[in-house]
Amino acid sequence: SALAEPGDASAARLVAEVGAVAALEAVLAGAGAQRWRTRLPAVDPGADLAALHRVGGRLLVPGDPGWPAGLGDLDTTAGGDGRPLAAPMCLWVRGPADLSTPAAAVVGSRAATGYGEAVAADLGAGLAERGVTVWSGGALGVDAAAHRGCLAVEGTTVVVLACGVDRAYPRTNAPLLARALRRGALVSEVPPGTGPTRWRFLERNRLLAAATRATVVVEAAWRSGALATADRAERLLRPVGAVPGPVTSAASAGCHRLLRERGAVCVTDAAEAAELVGAAGEHLPAAPVATAGPLDELTGADRRVVEVLPRRRPLPTEALARAGVGVVPATQAALGRLQLAGWAEAAGDGWRLVPGAAVLLREGGAGRA
Amino acid sequence: SALAEPGDASAARLVAEVGAVAALEAVLAGAGAQRWRTRLPAVDPGADLAALHRVGGRLLVPGDPGWPAGLGDLDTTAGGDGRPLAAPMCLWVRGPADLSTPAAAVVGSRAATGYGEAVAADLGAGLAERGVTVWSGGALGVDAAAHRGCLAVEGTTVVVLACGVDRAYPRTNAPLLARALRRGALVSEVPPGTGPTRWRFLERNRLLAAATRATVVVEAAWRSGALATADRAERLLRPVGAVPGPVTSAASAGCHRLLRERGAVCVTDAAEAAELVGAAGEHLPAAPVATAGPLDELTGADRRVVEVLPRRRPLPTEALARAGVGVVPATQAALGRLQLAGWAEAAGDGWRLVPGAAVLLREGGAGRA
Repeated sequence: SALAEPGDASAARLVAEVGAVAALEAVLAGAGAQRWRTRLPAVDPGADLAALHRVGGRLLVPGDPGWPAGLGDLDTTAGGDGRPLAAPMCLWVRGPADLSTPAAAVVGSRAATGYGEAVAADLGAGLAERGVTVWSGGALGVDAAAHRGCLAVEGTTVVVLACGVDRAYPRTNAPLLARALRRGALVSEVPPGTGPTRWRFLERNRLLAAATRATVVVEAAWRSGALATADRAERLLRPVGAVPGPVTSAASAGCHRLLRERGAVCVTDAAEAAELVGAAGEHLPAAPVATAGPLDELTGADRRVVEVLPRRRPLPTEALARAGVGVVPATQAALGRLQLAGWAEAAGDGWRLVPGAAVLLREGGAGRA
Repeated sequence: SALAEPGDASAARLVAEVGAVAALEAVLAGAGAQRWRTRLPAVDPGADLAALHRVGGRLLVPGDPGWPAGLGDLDTTAGGDGRPLAAPMCLWVRGPADLSTPAAAVVGSRAATGYGEAVAADLGAGLAERGVTVWSGGALGVDAAAHRGCLAVEGTTVVVLACGVDRAYPRTNAPLLARALRRGALVSEVPPGTGPTRWRFLERNRLLAAATRATVVVEAAWRSGALATADRAERLLRPVGAVPGPVTSAASAGCHRLLRERGAVCVTDAAEAAELVGAAGEHLPAAPVATAGPLDELTGADRRVVEVLPRRRPLPTEALARAGVGVVPATQAALGRLQLAGWAEAAGDGWRLVPGAAVLLREGGAGRA
């Protein structure tokens, strides 16, 4: 934790392969990356632990009770550069919160508007009322509002810091961090005394995304740290929600981008945010059987595509797109769903209705006669 | 047009089958629905046409130059009751606009906020600047703002009325309708002198949806006429856009519902609205070939699902959902796309990576090793 920077994929891989003790022994013996060996003289684990204990903290390593199991996914998930996102070596923790309980990350712009702060506070409170722990980055704006909303209803909130847990950053939020500490937790992957850097802020986002079941972005500029968190959540296979706002507000541009380009779920209140947390759980609906149901059950693109599917002579995807929803990718996706639902079948170079489904369609009086 | 109410599927079918002249002769001879024969004594086509010509109007029938070809889709598209939505018999038109040019419907709440009116006006102007005709219903609020924005940049706007084109409804908008008339058009499927009814307002929505290439909803309550137009557009296989707004604004609740539940496209400006109009055109991208591309090309759910696909022993959809995006329907859709893109293959009861794709995945260093 002290030798390697957050997100160091090589360090994470070495530890994953040989274990932390052997990895450290290897570096002490002169192996490993130069960047780790350079730091060796300055590292004093005993002093770091003493500093942690002075502020009443505890060290968690993977597998400890309360360790957020989702962090393990970081080792098997590729970042933008193709290398694993890298799980943290350990977490330096202050505060009583159990970090393994169902959680959502609520993140967004530091330069939030009054609207964004109000929505973030509502989400923080509403998620807490539904038993969901609210994780965020402790920054000004949306992060602080989400923590505050959660604390207002005596919920559990976890602040993931880019610096050591003995530091309060940003200083303005020191009273908030002190309050979060009482029932919640301050968490960092770097030892006490470590300062925040641009890199550590960026890597902090992957912890928020990985430790929680879903990430909700409240306000975000077109390019922003919150979108980085959403990107990590997406890579980690976690649901991403985006709160819409006025299209005239630059503060919501990133959220609208997530809705348009990344398929984020439109989230308008805490119930909808909690739904995302639930969706990542074990209570999945029963798998549908591949038998076509009534036409009424089809919605959106699926319905549009089924209506243009020929009964006999198959049509290629692009012809169906032209006759149907107008664009090829949406048509392909609909065909995939319709095939699984028993409506469509691939035949030759194209697609057509499954014969049984064609009967249903006729009985449904869909106006194809 | 005078005998049958707008959206009368039986009348539309009769005309489609035997032609308008034979259909009318049949009704004059005592055939057809009682509701048509009841009206016969009061119908005076000569007087209706004279009234139309007095206000400088013209009558368009299907196939005439300038007839909006998309209206024909109404006869082959089922409404909520399973019966066809029914194409209009004719259009009573005032104003010079060519009704067959590429168009978008911009619709929304009568009780629009200042925000909604400003966005609607921006969309009306921006679409006009891109050569798109702006259709709407001439109502207060969003409709009026869209017409106004279009007129402000000397664009072509078409007002579809629920009453005769010799009437101004709502009266408040009479000056606006007069301005629309100069370069645009007032359009109705009922003869001059006919008053608006609740039914005619509802059926008017299907004309907006069918005559245009895309429908954009600016503000709409949870249940509203604008959502009815969006529903018709969806059934007609036209793209539907929804403009987000503050989640605290009830006026945007319908738009957020479209984004969440109906897969509407998030539209934040005129360029994005115009994109929907273009998407319904002929210039489709070439169909992709079924060969897996680099992992980087996959985004969102597709990437998440491909990462959990096994190389050898197939896994059923629900197991992939549990390991991946968390929900079965999104997983099925992703599998459909991944199959078409050459990444996934169905095997036995489940799914696995296509062998060639597995190699790509390994080379991509996706951190699966």
